[in-house]
Amino acid sequence: MEDRVEISLLMDFYGPLLTEKQSEIMQWYYNDDLSLAEIAELNQTSRQAIHDLIKRCYKQLLSYESKLNLLQKSINRKKEIMNFLEHLKNKYSIDDEDIIKYKEKLENL
Amino acid sequence: MEDRVEISLLMDFYGPLLTEKQSEIMQWYYNDDLSLAEIAELNQTSRQAIHDLIKRCYKQLLSYESKLNLLQKSINRKKEIMNFLEHLKNKYSIDDEDIIKYKEKLENL
Repeated sequence: MEDRVEISLLMDFYGPLLTEKQSEIMQWYYNDDLSLAEIAELNQTSRQAIHDLIKRCYKQLLSYESKLNLLQKSINRKKEIMNFLEHLKNKYSIDDEDIIKYKEKLENL
Repeated sequence: MEDRVEISLLMDFYGPLLTEKQSEIMQWYYNDDLSLAEIAELNQTSRQAIHDLIKRCYKQLLSYESKLNLLQKSINRKKEIMNFLEHLKNKYSIDDEDIIKYKEKLENL
């Protein structure tokens, strides 16, 4: 269907805003690689119904991103952290080992 | 009604998920300090209708926070940035001036 990496990232940010059922089906389809037919059987519904639900959820995730931009901000943040650490390293001769530690720390803030 | 500072912060994070109308009324009430009666008049509706809308929006904002925790994460992030800068300053004798610059930079990441 759509780009799996993008959807997986969007799910990381906005998954909690979907219902439990929607979230479960998105996980099955995009992370666990179950087919539409398999998910339909597990839910005792049609392949088309699952297809529609996934499409609706994807649109919902895109809509959240268009309003909150959490994914885009996180991409920008990573770039800025790299620039910041580069500057820090040049100006204060910080150990490489520490730079790696700080990178991880700042990315998880 | 509820704590204005908390609501103002929640609006910073989740305001874009409200409708334009809801967002406008929340701004009027919590930022611009308009009364329920004034907002009701502007919207040609009752004071009670505005009161209910604001209450509903507040619950909606709390629901978003309970799912995404953006406000709580941002509070934690600020504390961790302070700790990180404290460590950096002690270990690499960073200028105070730079510490202030870095604090602002990291808080805006």
